Amino acid sequence: MEILMGIGRAGLKSGNKPDILVVLFPHTCQASFLFTNNHFKSASVLYSQKVFKGKVRALVINSGNANCGVGREGLLHAELMAKKVAEMLEIDEDEVLVFSTGVIGKPLPISSVLDAIEDACKLIEPLDLKRASEVISTTDNFPKYDFVRKGRLEVLGFAKGAGMIHPNMGTMLAFIFTNADLDGASLEELHREVNEGTFNSISVDGCTSTNDSFGLISLGRIREDLESVRQAVEEVSLSLAKKIVEDGEGATRVIKVMVKHASLQLKAKMIAEKVATSNLVKTAVFGKDPNWGRIVAAVGSTPFPIDQFKLKVHIGNHLIYDGKVHPRALEGAKKYMEESTEVEIVIDLMEGKESWTYYASDLTYQYIRINAEYTT
Amino acid sequence: MEILMGIGRAGLKSGNKPDILVVLFPHTCQASFLFTNNHFKSASVLYSQKVFKGKVRALVINSGNANCGVGREGLLHAELMAKKVAEMLEIDEDEVLVFSTGVIGKPLPISSVLDAIEDACKLIEPLDLKRASEVISTTDNFPKYDFVRKGRLEVLGFAKGAGMIHPNMGTMLAFIFTNADLDGASLEELHREVNEGTFNSISVDGCTSTNDSFGLISLGRIREDLESVRQAVEEVSLSLAKKIVEDGEGATRVIKVMVKHASLQLKAKMIAEKVATSNLVKTAVFGKDPNWGRIVAAVGSTPFPIDQFKLKVHIGNHLIYDGKVHPRALEGAKKYMEESTEVEIVIDLMEGKESWTYYASDLTYQYIRINAEYTT
Repeated sequence: MEILMGIGRAGLKSGNKPDILVVLFPHTCQASFLFTNNHFKSASVLYSQKVFKGKVRALVINSGNANCGVGREGLLHAELMAKKVAEMLEIDEDEVLVFSTGVIGKPLPISSVLDAIEDACKLIEPLDLKRASEVISTTDNFPKYDFVRKGRLEVLGFAKGAGMIHPNMGTMLAFIFTNADLDGASLEELHREVNEGTFNSISVDGCTSTNDSFGLISLGRIREDLESVRQAVEEVSLSLAKKIVEDGEGATRVIKVMVKHASLQLKAKMIAEKVATSNLVKTAVFGKDPNWGRIVAAVGSTPFPIDQFKLKVHIGNHLIYDGKVHPRALEGAKKYMEESTEVEIVIDLMEGKESWTYYASDLTYQYIRINAEYTT
Repeated sequence: MEILMGIGRAGLKSGNKPDILVVLFPHTCQASFLFTNNHFKSASVLYSQKVFKGKVRALVINSGNANCGVGREGLLHAELMAKKVAEMLEIDEDEVLVFSTGVIGKPLPISSVLDAIEDACKLIEPLDLKRASEVISTTDNFPKYDFVRKGRLEVLGFAKGAGMIHPNMGTMLAFIFTNADLDGASLEELHREVNEGTFNSISVDGCTSTNDSFGLISLGRIREDLESVRQAVEEVSLSLAKKIVEDGEGATRVIKVMVKHASLQLKAKMIAEKVATSNLVKTAVFGKDPNWGRIVAAVGSTPFPIDQFKLKVHIGNHLIYDGKVHPRALEGAKKYMEESTEVEIVIDLMEGKESWTYYASDLTYQYIRINAEYTT
């Protein structure tokens, strides 16, 4: 896809690493954006929400500073960033969206940022997904990007995120592009649907960021049936979402919780989320302990009733509980947990047809170290 | 108050420590009980919920085994425990309630338990609150009890709990007694109201136990105005609830979150809970870091809107944010956090008249150690 990018350095990250990314589309594109549901929003999110009207021509993203909690000045800074991109690239200011990620509460050094945007716009090159992810990264340990090509259909994307991850819409920052032509309504519906099952079904620490944003941009080059596009977008979204969990602060393992045979999808989702985000389950996975008592206690602690004498719990392929515990299966489950970097917990409610899958990282000494020793 | 107790040893705890407590009232008492909202309930909770009709004559509590997740056999075991107490003390079986706390998923060694109950009933002595708390303790580091005497009015209670603490009604186990005479309806209303502001406003790890139970028992000896009784019961409840947080697994500090000037009480409570239970806020308090960005991110992540340009955040007496951050106040807040074992965070929403206070423990290496190295 003929997407372009430019990179700049505003000194927002240590070691003067690149921290400004400008993404330019060949023409104005139909797009859908989902922003954090956190009411304490970054000024960049507030700005982009205000100007976005379903079309986008360019994105400008800074990392190392969240442009959040800095008073109304932050709104002005976001606007200046968009204006600068529009001027430099001779495009419409209202079609430039602004994103920020990093430390909360520090004013942006706006003149350095504007200079870096100017540099970025002068050296426009084809989009390199890996490089783009690196530029917007903060505490990430590895870049997050993926793509799907099926016949003529292309879907590609990049993301960042490792901490303050419990998206209540998108993750910290994720952008996915497709060459498929979709009208605004279909794009938005597909976007929300895919988001629910991917970025809205992951958690590192249960904390929803002030800056979460997830964009899906259609370049409108080919006609494809909606279902194929949905599948490809979902594949890339899930891949990016899982990479964020893998890179979760201090994580040693990914916990995959599948709730099956629930009477309602919401029930399946709430139970899967409760198990995946339980600090007791997360520490047990870190300790390689098939502690099913903590799992069933989490299963029971949503507003939805469950039948404790009927439900089944598997860890990997090991059936450890079905109304009562199977001590021998626990040994197998322990071995499985010792050997796996992705620990699958399956809860079968034995009552209906709905299911949901939720991903989380484990809770480790390293998480405490990162977050207790990080200083504002 | 003329309450009696007996102690037995069923071998449920290591070192053959006392693990059976029988509490006997001089006559049938008006009582109110609140049980966990977890749908995966201990069989002892299911049994007690079934038989309790507003009156109680005796309690039997075992520690070291939760009688939970053991299939329908657990219900029979709870019934046998109540029957044994009723036989030994010649009282009505339906007025004996059963409570259990400890490991989930191990069948009770019922014959040892019944023998220990028999021993306990043979050596009945006056209630010793400290001793009672010790007998029902599991991972607790210190006993939890308190009392208030105001004129003739007496309120006394004991409790246990250190982990799996995010009560969705009472804590693991708490029992409060008063000599005040209250009718059933007043007792229940007072109980629910006090519970909301005390045991339902504490969290160690965000995980709701399968066994939480909180009883309030009136011995009906004196007439007192309801408000005096409410205050005294609240004082004892809050004292016990705070002791549980202080003893939270791995805790080094108590976090006290006060939300002030909210438009709705529910909003104040949800925001206070969100801040107090945020893993990022809890690790920051452990790290003595006045990380207000994590506080405001938590404030924004309930369903209730907030005005980020108006709200104020204090840590101790230090105003660190009021639409923008005050860097010098952060230094004072850091010093305050280093010196305090109870860290007070005040969020002033500047919009209404409602307030709420929530208590939680910090999140430490020791919490991870206890919960990752504990094996089922």
